[in-house]
Amino acid sequence: MFYFIIDILGTIAFAISGVLVAMNKRLDIFGVFIIAFVTAVGGGTLRDVLIGNTPVLWMKEPVYITVIAVTVVFSVIFVKQLKYLRKTLFLFDTIGIGLFTMLGIEKGLAVDLLPVMCIALGTITACFGGVIRDMLCNEIPVIFRRKEIYATACILGGSSYFLFIRLPFDGAYAYIAAILIIITVRLLAVKFRIALPDIYGKGKG
Amino acid sequence: MFYFIIDILGTIAFAISGVLVAMNKRLDIFGVFIIAFVTAVGGGTLRDVLIGNTPVLWMKEPVYITVIAVTVVFSVIFVKQLKYLRKTLFLFDTIGIGLFTMLGIEKGLAVDLLPVMCIALGTITACFGGVIRDMLCNEIPVIFRRKEIYATACILGGSSYFLFIRLPFDGAYAYIAAILIIITVRLLAVKFRIALPDIYGKGKG
Amino acid sequence: MFYFIIDILGTIAFAISGVLVAMNKRLDIFGVFIIAFVTAVGGGTLRDVLIGNTPVLWMKEPVYITVIAVTVVFSVIFVKQLKYLRKTLFLFDTIGIGLFTMLGIEKGLAVDLLPVMCIALGTITACFGGVIRDMLCNEIPVIFRRKEIYATACILGGSSYFLFIRLPFDGAYAYIAAILIIITVRLLAVKFRIALPDIYGKGKG
Repeated sequence: MFYFIIDILGTIAFAISGVLVAMNKRLDIFGVFIIAFVTAVGGGTLRDVLIGNTPVLWMKEPVYITVIAVTVVFSVIFVKQLKYLRKTLFLFDTIGIGLFTMLGIEKGLAVDLLPVMCIALGTITACFGGVIRDMLCNEIPVIFRRKEIYATACILGGSSYFLFIRLPFDGAYAYIAAILIIITVRLLAVKFRIALPDIYGKGKG
Repeated sequence: MFYFIIDILGTIAFAISGVLVAMNKRLDIFGVFIIAFVTAVGGGTLRDVLIGNTPVLWMKEPVYITVIAVTVVFSVIFVKQLKYLRKTLFLFDTIGIGLFTMLGIEKGLAVDLLPVMCIALGTITACFGGVIRDMLCNEIPVIFRRKEIYATACILGGSSYFLFIRLPFDGAYAYIAAILIIITVRLLAVKFRIALPDIYGKGKG
Repeated sequence: MFYFIIDILGTIAFAISGVLVAMNKRLDIFGVFIIAFVTAVGGGTLRDVLIGNTPVLWMKEPVYITVIAVTVVFSVIFVKQLKYLRKTLFLFDTIGIGLFTMLGIEKGLAVDLLPVMCIALGTITACFGGVIRDMLCNEIPVIFRRKEIYATACILGGSSYFLFIRLPFDGAYAYIAAILIIITVRLLAVKFRIALPDIYGKGKG
């Protein structure tokens, strides 16, 4: 139940991010819905397709399409008010990538993938909805450009999970600890403006 | 046989639409062929991948690649004459989305999806070839932008199918009725310039 | 072992081509890695997804992600020196598409596809990593635009394979002969500036 609520909050945060990008591009209501949908479930869909877990999750669980449809309606109506929710949405998004990463890792373990592939799968689950959103909106994906600690937080948290499960604790603790690490890394990076190293360098590029 | 002919006519119309977009972007002959191919079979391919119906349909039925190759050759040679066929192509395209929507719904029912997911799958079959075409041509997909009643017609027709099959008629009637509704909605929308509601509003955006 | 080395050299050449495109777009280090990765394994991934060969190959063989990660690190550090390797990289790339085409054809034969579909699958394996790379970098895929003999070489070599296996020789010869034909066609086309026929024509377009 607890995880379910996080899952829904993350889905809402992702869908709203899709609505905002789509409305910024002046898409019509169908386009706004598709972009919101793809942002929210695209990462999990890509994950399911890559491991052959089909029909993909959202087709089997109508809760996602329902939540996203309601989110789109409210977001379009109250789009001006959304800016006052920026911090809340950022928090939902951050909690969302934490959970989504671990959901992806679980799916990878279920098909016997190596830890490194599970971490990749978790990162895809958390981050590639936004990548598909940006591709559809004719932009280079934002997580490839901004040097933000976003996917990196997922990779760090996912890696720590595979360290934790070697410790003599219950697996559930490792799961929660990994989610908390993802959230913490992301929050600290934003708070202290920590970025990925620059690979171009001044005067060198 | 009847459905087969509609399927081929729809495929031809979709392939020609791909040729026109690709030539407008001045792609080379290989690019024109790929864009035509993707426009015609991309929706069905995405559908098959999402439900795990692999190898995807066009790999098992060589009729599609053959029809598309012939269509591309003729379209490239007679590209100037194509403008005189605009109304015919529009009609083929409209009949095509009607049939493709129902083909997608059938595939969804075959894997026990809920009605709402079958309708989504039908709409993907009919409309997402064009979405992939536009992504490859570096454009925001046209069906997300123009407020046209296109995907909406597929959704309405698909929904009506699930109403009709509850009525005491043969399922084949429901199938044909749904196709006719999609075609009619699309034709009326174009004829009377009915569009999706504007979500931006003057002076508000 | 021999094929394995070619596979790795091709993967390195593809990854480097991804690094160069990504750095040209000034992506961050995460973006550079993803683009390199997608360029190298994207074609094989699309192939595996289309035929339902999941989890896709790179998830089961950690050698690819390792080779690509090392390639990215070295490429980013020695990016200025890469220009001196242009001819070597071109050669690796050419050998790579030869092998990748035949790997794709093998996979198609393994799921009983028709020769024409196997050739399509081989071409997808060899060429569509670059297509996905260009989509992610917000460009119309370069192989659709330049009239280069690139995919065409794969198609010719793949087709010749299905002629050769009818001859009274061992299948392994046909395999190697097809790879050599792809490499030769590509090298000759570049050397003698042979291009795809122009479909626009001067003054006509």
